[in-house]
Amino acid sequence: MPVTIDLNADLGEGFGAWQLGDDDALLAVVTSANVACGFHAGDPAIMARVCQLAASRGVAIGAQVGYRDLVGFGRRDIAVPAAELAADVAYQLGALDAFCRLAGTRVRYVKPHGALYHRLAVDNAAAAAVVAAVARFDPALAVLGLPGSRLLDRAAEAGLAAIPEGFADRAYLGGGGLVPRDVPGAVIDDEATVVARAVQLATSGTVVAIDGGEVGVAPQSLCLHSDTPGAARLARAVRAALTDAGVAVQAFA
Amino acid sequence: MPVTIDLNADLGEGFGAWQLGDDDALLAVVTSANVACGFHAGDPAIMARVCQLAASRGVAIGAQVGYRDLVGFGRRDIAVPAAELAADVAYQLGALDAFCRLAGTRVRYVKPHGALYHRLAVDNAAAAAVVAAVARFDPALAVLGLPGSRLLDRAAEAGLAAIPEGFADRAYLGGGGLVPRDVPGAVIDDEATVVARAVQLATSGTVVAIDGGEVGVAPQSLCLHSDTPGAARLARAVRAALTDAGVAVQAFA
Amino acid sequence: MPVTIDLNADLGEGFGAWQLGDDDALLAVVTSANVACGFHAGDPAIMARVCQLAASRGVAIGAQVGYRDLVGFGRRDIAVPAAELAADVAYQLGALDAFCRLAGTRVRYVKPHGALYHRLAVDNAAAAAVVAAVARFDPALAVLGLPGSRLLDRAAEAGLAAIPEGFADRAYLGGGGLVPRDVPGAVIDDEATVVARAVQLATSGTVVAIDGGEVGVAPQSLCLHSDTPGAARLARAVRAALTDAGVAVQAFA
Amino acid sequence: MPVTIDLNADLGEGFGAWQLGDDDALLAVVTSANVACGFHAGDPAIMARVCQLAASRGVAIGAQVGYRDLVGFGRRDIAVPAAELAADVAYQLGALDAFCRLAGTRVRYVKPHGALYHRLAVDNAAAAAVVAAVARFDPALAVLGLPGSRLLDRAAEAGLAAIPEGFADRAYLGGGGLVPRDVPGAVIDDEATVVARAVQLATSGTVVAIDGGEVGVAPQSLCLHSDTPGAARLARAVRAALTDAGVAVQAFA
Repeated sequence: MPVTIDLNADLGEGFGAWQLGDDDALLAVVTSANVACGFHAGDPAIMARVCQLAASRGVAIGAQVGYRDLVGFGRRDIAVPAAELAADVAYQLGALDAFCRLAGTRVRYVKPHGALYHRLAVDNAAAAAVVAAVARFDPALAVLGLPGSRLLDRAAEAGLAAIPEGFADRAYLGGGGLVPRDVPGAVIDDEATVVARAVQLATSGTVVAIDGGEVGVAPQSLCLHSDTPGAARLARAVRAALTDAGVAVQAFA
Repeated sequence: MPVTIDLNADLGEGFGAWQLGDDDALLAVVTSANVACGFHAGDPAIMARVCQLAASRGVAIGAQVGYRDLVGFGRRDIAVPAAELAADVAYQLGALDAFCRLAGTRVRYVKPHGALYHRLAVDNAAAAAVVAAVARFDPALAVLGLPGSRLLDRAAEAGLAAIPEGFADRAYLGGGGLVPRDVPGAVIDDEATVVARAVQLATSGTVVAIDGGEVGVAPQSLCLHSDTPGAARLARAVRAALTDAGVAVQAFA
Repeated sequence: MPVTIDLNADLGEGFGAWQLGDDDALLAVVTSANVACGFHAGDPAIMARVCQLAASRGVAIGAQVGYRDLVGFGRRDIAVPAAELAADVAYQLGALDAFCRLAGTRVRYVKPHGALYHRLAVDNAAAAAVVAAVARFDPALAVLGLPGSRLLDRAAEAGLAAIPEGFADRAYLGGGGLVPRDVPGAVIDDEATVVARAVQLATSGTVVAIDGGEVGVAPQSLCLHSDTPGAARLARAVRAALTDAGVAVQAFA
Repeated sequence: MPVTIDLNADLGEGFGAWQLGDDDALLAVVTSANVACGFHAGDPAIMARVCQLAASRGVAIGAQVGYRDLVGFGRRDIAVPAAELAADVAYQLGALDAFCRLAGTRVRYVKPHGALYHRLAVDNAAAAAVVAAVARFDPALAVLGLPGSRLLDRAAEAGLAAIPEGFADRAYLGGGGLVPRDVPGAVIDDEATVVARAVQLATSGTVVAIDGGEVGVAPQSLCLHSDTPGAARLARAVRAALTDAGVAVQAFA
């Protein structure tokens, strides 16, 4: 039985006249599309278009939910109480599901974005509230996030599929966490290195940490960045290398 | 077989710290709640609360969709192209449906708000685009609006339930349209008059126009205003008078 | 020489169709109007109206600056970097100054709102960045805030007038800080008590803390809440009692 | 005495993480920067940065005011009443002036953007309200707009400098209006043609209309588009050709 891995990327992150990333090119590579839902990026017309294109290509659609913060692109933490956060997530999830329905499909998973991703990794009350809302919306939904995060813990506990993801272009700490972005070396630029790390993550579930040791990540999905020049090219290189290594690239949901 | 009529009102029209209308009192009277979906009013926490309360009282929930215009409360026309408008409506509809699901129910109908209500009465392309989105989202949805409007025409054509509504507190033109709000006498304040017009609209389907003639409206629902002081009291008076007149007050959806 | 004190209140905190507080009644009582600038509340039409009315009554106008967070009313902390925060404050300050100019006057002071008020009390880098922007905008501006806050420290250091304020309806800790709102007894409701505390704050500069001891506040301004029922009545009672006690009520700026 | 002309371009039209156009490159070419003020584009951090750079290069700064419509980029008409529109303009104007002050300069002129540009060309009441607000804010401000527009008429009447602009890359109707964008040939792509039209507009004040006739435009400023690939290169070519033709390129304000 072959090893399988999912490739996910953040898509639909423009807003109105503003574009970010190359949705069309990436939708030809990834198996899961984290579609922005209008709070940190994305607008209804973009969401409609991306969902239509993803559906037509058989790419699974997930709700990339964030804080309500267009100007901060969802990257600034906001002290939203847990109950309101759960409502914010439900709102975005439902909105995206509408475009999935219009495209003949349904939302398959939820992935938090930016500062919310980090908060839900450690804030247990917020993670529990969000998971409860997601499970009530549709218990067949998966949750995609950081291995070992409170979010995945609570999702698993609630009976949702909890999908851990890995990052081929981010440096890892010895304990399995990510090296913060503002630390030198946190982001790996070299294409060959990124590709090699992706293959190792997919085939062995491990990655070499910044301290030289090997850490277990066991990802079911690899996150490909979409907002850098060359993102689509790198994504294609990763996918090709995975296929060459005998890894089956397919959606988890 | 008794005459039946629905009573609808705009609810959930606060935003954050701001309140508008008495949702709780009106939810004890109406049979259909037009819940604001966040574009002209309403936020996720309010939507969650109103949907929960409406569901617990057996009040049917409809998506009160509007232009994206918080500062204008959706009352200013915006030249949104038809395709984008359809996406805006789908977004709001899906978002509200999430809170219905969390409350154990579903959105039953769509009613446009403010300037969008008036535009969809006359703009055939916009009405057709919106109806197509609503029908693809869920063909079991009803559309609530102005009798004779393009919106109801297109909805009926698409196989959706097209529900005409009447206004007991608005003056009618001889042709069946509403007297514009800025014309003296356009809004009827006297409670006894409003109650009597409500009963006539429900029992005979007609109303006395501003020119003294009788016009046919044939409403399946009466719209009760929610944003004026005394709105809840007037709503209770209308409902009591309808019941006294032998009219069964029940949701259309 | 008589003791003097300023009375300030948050005004113009509606948005579009939504109202909050009774601006007209309070503008007949206070000597300084903290006018919301559109980020947490307030819109251009409201700002224009409040500035016009304040100017016509000789009430000093201050910029009540907040986080960009309408749905949270500026009450949720947002991790905005200091430089962006300074730009946000400059934006709001300039916008309000436009309406002051239209009304024949100028902004006289800056007071942060909600979560920003609390952040600037303790975050030195943010306080310094905000003060630098305010001073560059106009070195004649005063800054109104919490006694002992980083904001007032940095303002004084920059040569701006740093005006400490007191709260007659809030309980104080022994060290001079405010008892957090979620602690029982944090907000004082009884009118006679509030009035007495206002007079003591104005005449002796002290207040009885929640532990029974007396703490020095030495306010140059008293903040009157504007968003509760009865706010205007209480404000009038406070002002009358201050006048009876021989305190001159006048703007600091 | 040499012929002089101003070159203006829309700048600062990004928002948060989203960029649009190459502000830095264009600020090396233009003499007037129409800086977006946050309603249709632009945020405080961007405004601060662009104003600083423009001031350091001696580029005059104007307030590029628009409808409050980020998702529509100010390109959709909104039925804002004239008084509210004037308040919206004053708000944006004041906000931008704050960043000019921080950069050691002041706003020199106002130019409406997108749908507001077109509305103020024909809506006399709106133009009059906007001009009144601008004049009360600062009677030394200029107004930049379409020759023959209501906006320039009202500005001149109010004693403001009314500056007509021309478009080297847009086709003109025989009467002097612009060919609507959706008409084939409305936008001129060929660099040599654009450059030649710019020189003719600057030196003779005329341009060849789409019907082959010559129309008088008499612009004091030429608008260079900033949001297309190659915008900066084209701007440099236009400026070089103007200089070669003996035209002095300098700000009108």
